[in-house]
Amino acid sequence: RIDADRLWDSLMEMAKIGPGIAGGNNRQTLTDEDGEGRALFQSWCEAVGCTMGLDQMGNMFARYEGTDPDLLPVYVGSHLDTQPTGGKYDGVLGVLGGLEVIRTMHEQGIKTKHPIVVTNWTNEEGTRYAPAMLSSGVFAGKHTQDWAYDRVDAEGKRFGDELKRIGWRGDEEVGARKMHAMFELHIEQGPILEAEGKDIGVVTHGQGLRWIEVTVTGKESHTGSTPMHMRKNAGRGLALITELVHEIAMKNQPNAVGAIGHIDVYPNSRNIIPGKVVFTVDMRTHLLDKLNDMVDELMEKAPKLCEEIGVEFSAEIVGQFDPPAFDEDCVAAIREGAETMGYSHRDIISGAGHDACWINDVAPTAMVMCPCVDGLSHNEAEEISKDWAAAGANVLMHAVLKTAQV
Amino acid sequence: RIDADRLWDSLMEMAKIGPGIAGGNNRQTLTDEDGEGRALFQSWCEAVGCTMGLDQMGNMFARYEGTDPDLLPVYVGSHLDTQPTGGKYDGVLGVLGGLEVIRTMHEQGIKTKHPIVVTNWTNEEGTRYAPAMLSSGVFAGKHTQDWAYDRVDAEGKRFGDELKRIGWRGDEEVGARKMHAMFELHIEQGPILEAEGKDIGVVTHGQGLRWIEVTVTGKESHTGSTPMHMRKNAGRGLALITELVHEIAMKNQPNAVGAIGHIDVYPNSRNIIPGKVVFTVDMRTHLLDKLNDMVDELMEKAPKLCEEIGVEFSAEIVGQFDPPAFDEDCVAAIREGAETMGYSHRDIISGAGHDACWINDVAPTAMVMCPCVDGLSHNEAEEISKDWAAAGANVLMHAVLKTAQV
Ligand SMILES: NC(=O)NCCC(=O)O
Ligand SMILES: NC(=O)NCCC(=O)O
Repeated sequence: RIDADRLWDSLMEMAKIGPGIAGGNNRQTLTDEDGEGRALFQSWCEAVGCTMGLDQMGNMFARYEGTDPDLLPVYVGSHLDTQPTGGKYDGVLGVLGGLEVIRTMHEQGIKTKHPIVVTNWTNEEGTRYAPAMLSSGVFAGKHTQDWAYDRVDAEGKRFGDELKRIGWRGDEEVGARKMHAMFELHIEQGPILEAEGKDIGVVTHGQGLRWIEVTVTGKESHTGSTPMHMRKNAGRGLALITELVHEIAMKNQPNAVGAIGHIDVYPNSRNIIPGKVVFTVDMRTHLLDKLNDMVDELMEKAPKLCEEIGVEFSAEIVGQFDPPAFDEDCVAAIREGAETMGYSHRDIISGAGHDACWINDVAPTAMVMCPCVDGLSHNEAEEISKDWAAAGANVLMHAVLKTAQV
Repeated sequence: RIDADRLWDSLMEMAKIGPGIAGGNNRQTLTDEDGEGRALFQSWCEAVGCTMGLDQMGNMFARYEGTDPDLLPVYVGSHLDTQPTGGKYDGVLGVLGGLEVIRTMHEQGIKTKHPIVVTNWTNEEGTRYAPAMLSSGVFAGKHTQDWAYDRVDAEGKRFGDELKRIGWRGDEEVGARKMHAMFELHIEQGPILEAEGKDIGVVTHGQGLRWIEVTVTGKESHTGSTPMHMRKNAGRGLALITELVHEIAMKNQPNAVGAIGHIDVYPNSRNIIPGKVVFTVDMRTHLLDKLNDMVDELMEKAPKLCEEIGVEFSAEIVGQFDPPAFDEDCVAAIREGAETMGYSHRDIISGAGHDACWINDVAPTAMVMCPCVDGLSHNEAEEISKDWAAAGANVLMHAVLKTAQV
């Protein structure tokens, strides 16, 4: 069993870097704080004898040797970057849970045949640089590295430049590593496990995602002196599409979601009718056909709604992944871990996207989830208990040790 | 008659300060560019023998002496500040049109009994610092100076500090001056004059305005893993209220308008359901009862809409003025000017708020309007013709000379 206090202390230690304003974290990808968090993680890994690999996307790979150097490593990890108003556990638990597995092995002299590699994937959140899971995506061949380097943040800073600036661009070719298997521990970020009183979620599938960046173009003009019939109010396009997205998601219940999280209004002045609104629709479900139908309905109806009110609609997909089905053997190893250790558990679909969703395409992969309070995540008030964290890490250790052959 | 070319050249010269990105201007109040524009205006005034007064709100008063120093001055003016993506004429025409009246008098040796004072009112636009017409409002006793000084911009910079920083805070007590009358020339900012082929709008009334800053509070949470029935999506509150405002305005046709121009979404991330949206509703009409009814309907229905979707509604009035009815003699002087000079004209209601709307409460006031292309304003593409500008300035001169007694 892992050391619950040590795991918790490390979570709290990491949370001191890039503190938020309301108890959570703002340690966005490729900021100075991200760099600081990486350095701390590296120092912890090296203290238990790992050697650190770093690829050209800044993905970190802390390798703990096995007894047979010819075998492919078992990977375990998640991400250390956070949302601008994020929690202390989203991603971090998966990285430090992996480290805790190594620390426990190191302490107890446990050896596996396969090496074990704890990974920190760069820019999982996708807030500063869309899309989410950018670097595991490049690793899995979903995006080219050049394309990823050219992503820009809201201030126009390139991903490639910022990665270099914080000093975490490595030399290793991205995706060159081969994996025996990969496991990711993550908080549920939803309410199901807590509501049902389960310790462990055995993740069998994930939701697929589409991020559709919509631009509605109207005509900037004076709110006071432009008669109603002459207006081209882009804000109304946003309003109608907000409700359309909601209706499409509701129509596809259960297990489908849709919302608009990011909205930019131009020129954003109290007495100017919005001339342009740019916003991102987020739609998800775990059934590929349903996901495509939802997007089709949006792309059919939204332009019509805009036409009716005299504004123009255009849209571009800025992030997408199809619903993953995780590897049966890896999933079984997690379920067995929960059983063996006496944790209550249930199979679950991941609502969020995770690095494991991409890696699943290039290696046998699975995920283990633990509950979080009120299902709340992407919020500084995100909370979990020490016991939940420990249960997740224990099940993770079981699956890793089994797959890496003790 | 004024010199149309000289007026136009001055408009173009002023437009070089704080150029926009699309042919218009970004010379927002209390920026360095505002300071530069003020200095240019002062140099022009002094070149024709005016003396410059400056009050504690930064309002500029260029005085051209009359023959009887005991008489109260006739004021004429508008504002030199612009929207972030504003045009070259909104406000500026009224200030430089006033200057052109003085230049013409100076050149032709015309003398009036009353002195004439050309005024530049600080922060008419209200974009950087709400509310609009801030400094004419302090002058007319609508706001205290301390309250005005404490207004903050989006970066948290205080009005009082910025006024001092750009070096245009004077010593004169605000509102101490008494006026014989005040005239403001302004572009229509709407489509009526152009559509009807009229040279001149004789402004009899203005629309009243209410700016209602609404905060809708939901709960930030993950767009992927929060089930639909557990969401508190503040963005939906914005959507429903956007449509409600539109409906209320449509129900009150003709001569009523409503829209939302300014929207801030928190935390504004693609995969976070908006936890809070702050936006400003702008509602206007020229009938006080109707205006109050419109606001009442909003304040009754919007909280219910929010309650139905599980989000909280709160609202605060951040700007307001009642519909002004301009002084009959001043209005008659403008109408007579248009008649005498052979310009086609019609009576008109001002759609926008103007400094004249406040000054009307403390002095006999009226406005003259000229057309603008497509009724477009608060847009860099705002355009007028040299002939329209000249007609407006000629009618302004007629009214000023008549009232100041040639
Ligand atoms: N786990 C997580 O929040 N990932 C970000 C990508 C997503 O929006 O699902
Ligand atoms: N004229 C003008 O645009 N004034 C700003 C105040 C308003 O929004 O009406």
